[in-house]
Amino acid sequence: MSEKKIFIFDTTLRDGEQVPGCKLNTKEKIELALQLEDLGVDIIEAGFPISSPGDFESVNQIAKTIKNATVCGLSRAVQKDIEVAGEALKPAARRRIHTGIGTSDYHIKSKFNSNREDILQRAIQCVKWARNYTDDIEFYAEDAGRTDNDYLAKVVEAVIAAGATTVNIPDTTGYCLPYQYGDKIAYLVNNVPNIDKAVLSCHCHNDLGLATANSIAGIISGARQIECTINGLGERAGNTSLEEVVMIIKQHKHLGFTTSIKSEQLNPISRVVSDVMRMPVQPNKAIVGSNAFSHSSGIHQDGFLKDALTYEIINPEEVGAAGSRIVLTARSGRSALAHRLQKLGYQFNRNDVDVLYEMFLKVADLKKEVQDEDLKEMSAAYKPEAVTAS
Amino acid sequence: MSEKKIFIFDTTLRDGEQVPGCKLNTKEKIELALQLEDLGVDIIEAGFPISSPGDFESVNQIAKTIKNATVCGLSRAVQKDIEVAGEALKPAARRRIHTGIGTSDYHIKSKFNSNREDILQRAIQCVKWARNYTDDIEFYAEDAGRTDNDYLAKVVEAVIAAGATTVNIPDTTGYCLPYQYGDKIAYLVNNVPNIDKAVLSCHCHNDLGLATANSIAGIISGARQIECTINGLGERAGNTSLEEVVMIIKQHKHLGFTTSIKSEQLNPISRVVSDVMRMPVQPNKAIVGSNAFSHSSGIHQDGFLKDALTYEIINPEEVGAAGSRIVLTARSGRSALAHRLQKLGYQFNRNDVDVLYEMFLKVADLKKEVQDEDLKEMSAAYKPEAVTAS
Repeated sequence: MSEKKIFIFDTTLRDGEQVPGCKLNTKEKIELALQLEDLGVDIIEAGFPISSPGDFESVNQIAKTIKNATVCGLSRAVQKDIEVAGEALKPAARRRIHTGIGTSDYHIKSKFNSNREDILQRAIQCVKWARNYTDDIEFYAEDAGRTDNDYLAKVVEAVIAAGATTVNIPDTTGYCLPYQYGDKIAYLVNNVPNIDKAVLSCHCHNDLGLATANSIAGIISGARQIECTINGLGERAGNTSLEEVVMIIKQHKHLGFTTSIKSEQLNPISRVVSDVMRMPVQPNKAIVGSNAFSHSSGIHQDGFLKDALTYEIINPEEVGAAGSRIVLTARSGRSALAHRLQKLGYQFNRNDVDVLYEMFLKVADLKKEVQDEDLKEMSAAYKPEAVTAS
Repeated sequence: MSEKKIFIFDTTLRDGEQVPGCKLNTKEKIELALQLEDLGVDIIEAGFPISSPGDFESVNQIAKTIKNATVCGLSRAVQKDIEVAGEALKPAARRRIHTGIGTSDYHIKSKFNSNREDILQRAIQCVKWARNYTDDIEFYAEDAGRTDNDYLAKVVEAVIAAGATTVNIPDTTGYCLPYQYGDKIAYLVNNVPNIDKAVLSCHCHNDLGLATANSIAGIISGARQIECTINGLGERAGNTSLEEVVMIIKQHKHLGFTTSIKSEQLNPISRVVSDVMRMPVQPNKAIVGSNAFSHSSGIHQDGFLKDALTYEIINPEEVGAAGSRIVLTARSGRSALAHRLQKLGYQFNRNDVDVLYEMFLKVADLKKEVQDEDLKEMSAAYKPEAVTAS
């Protein structure tokens, strides 16, 4: 089976950068764009050019700098937005305009005080405006997650006919369950006559912790692009985490998908983004958290030391993380203790380890983590002659 | 349709507490147990009594203290473990022993150097031992996520026949996709003859960012208990986040499930756990992250100010979070600026706001976030007579 390519559309510099506290200056944005290109992302959403003179400048400079990835700029379905985006993107080797409008009844009524037919016409119009600047046009149907499928199919068909080459189906509020999002994509694949002329894209938010699962459900149903950010940054609870969808595609080869991402750069770029945007990554974050490859319970440590595969599905090196870590705590067992003592250069027999394990637990019950220095003290107290070489 | 109750099994004090740096002393564990009971969890996994004298003491004290929730202790399929767990849990009003063994071929071969038939007998044996101490017995089939379904069904049938009243199907390595985990639960529901005599439980890990989605897929397929932790703490990338599954069940009423959790306590208890375990929650964490209800892009702010439902599916008060936050950055639009100026007591007309918006963007391009003090300076510079009352 030949693998189907999933396009990775990174929006760290747009949906991520709009987060409170994450704003970057032009120099920082250019540096990150270069690292994203090196990581292997297919499309870099560089910003929202109409939003401020500073962001226009950032998108424009990124367009001049990036050679391999497509550079994309966001706009509303407003002529001036699209003109400014087209102008900012002009120098790009490959440029994409991302434009669109809300299609759910919530958005049509509350935000636009309008009706479905009028919104359909505005959707067609914005794609036509964008064609003045590029052939690579992505249309977003904002709040597609809560949009009626039949109306959504009409909008998708119309914008593809008008020239959209990618159609983004955002779950803007992070509301969908995976089976619902997957069904929505499947509905479009089956009910939009000209669907083969465009790529369907998943843009999921994480308000209920389901962005990654929804994106994967989307590609299983026929979407071919995922919009995501490093560390899952983005509005509110954030977007789909790039590192998670990339590693799911890599680990679950039976799905038949592939991406261009160099996975060994995932942890390094996660740290860069966290530092420059001053947004901490929690230790229990999948793939890039500092504990993602730490083992601390005795049951897990014992199994892990016999065969890493018993508790680890990803080799840390594959995602550029430091090696797996065995942490000694009050939940650790004899085998982890024996392993560490041996690494420290001690030659203890089984009875010795039993005695030392009781000493170890007394210390461990008082401390968060038992350090090598603690073990050396215990060993010296127990058998002063058992001095380690190191 | 009558709603089906989903039992919430909290393992913050066991799977969460075994994380590097998260170890708690007995006093801290008792205090958290009381808060978990007040939150409304059905079962509190209080610890792993054989692991250390300190943890035995913690489980024992929690068993004495907790009156409404079931108190559970972990053990391996080892007679001594179960004896010690039974002893620690003795004072509990409702006590559960959680015991089990690895059932995947990885675990059977690498960890136990054994075979399927021997493991099946050890599984039955550990349930029989546990019956000496309680009628509420939960069996875990460790690494069930990678266990052959046919063999897993045999094990589940045998342990239910031996007296297990709950059977835990852990995706120990966080490997499954939601449809795979759902199919596994459905297979057990359809192929274990005595399955109606026990509750199936989902225990999912988050190594690929799918723990929440897998747990939801599990209950859709017939499981009736979810094992989870506050903030998703746990081994490596952690466990299922309690706050995420609870709010999915609450938001998606069409699924027909209910829990006993008081959702307005979710943010307060998240902060307590984060503080006492010294484990930061990232700002973009669903439900309990500090940005979970922040809106910063102009498009979102404009829609949100017209009708919160355009961009927000959960009312922050419902989960005990401070109100929604409108943050002013270079990605904000006129409507958010006008709204803030009005809140500050200024009476500007549309032309004024246009002028001030240009001033605002110049400041915003240089700063991460524009503060009220900045707006007051701008307003004073533009129209010194427009002094706010506040």
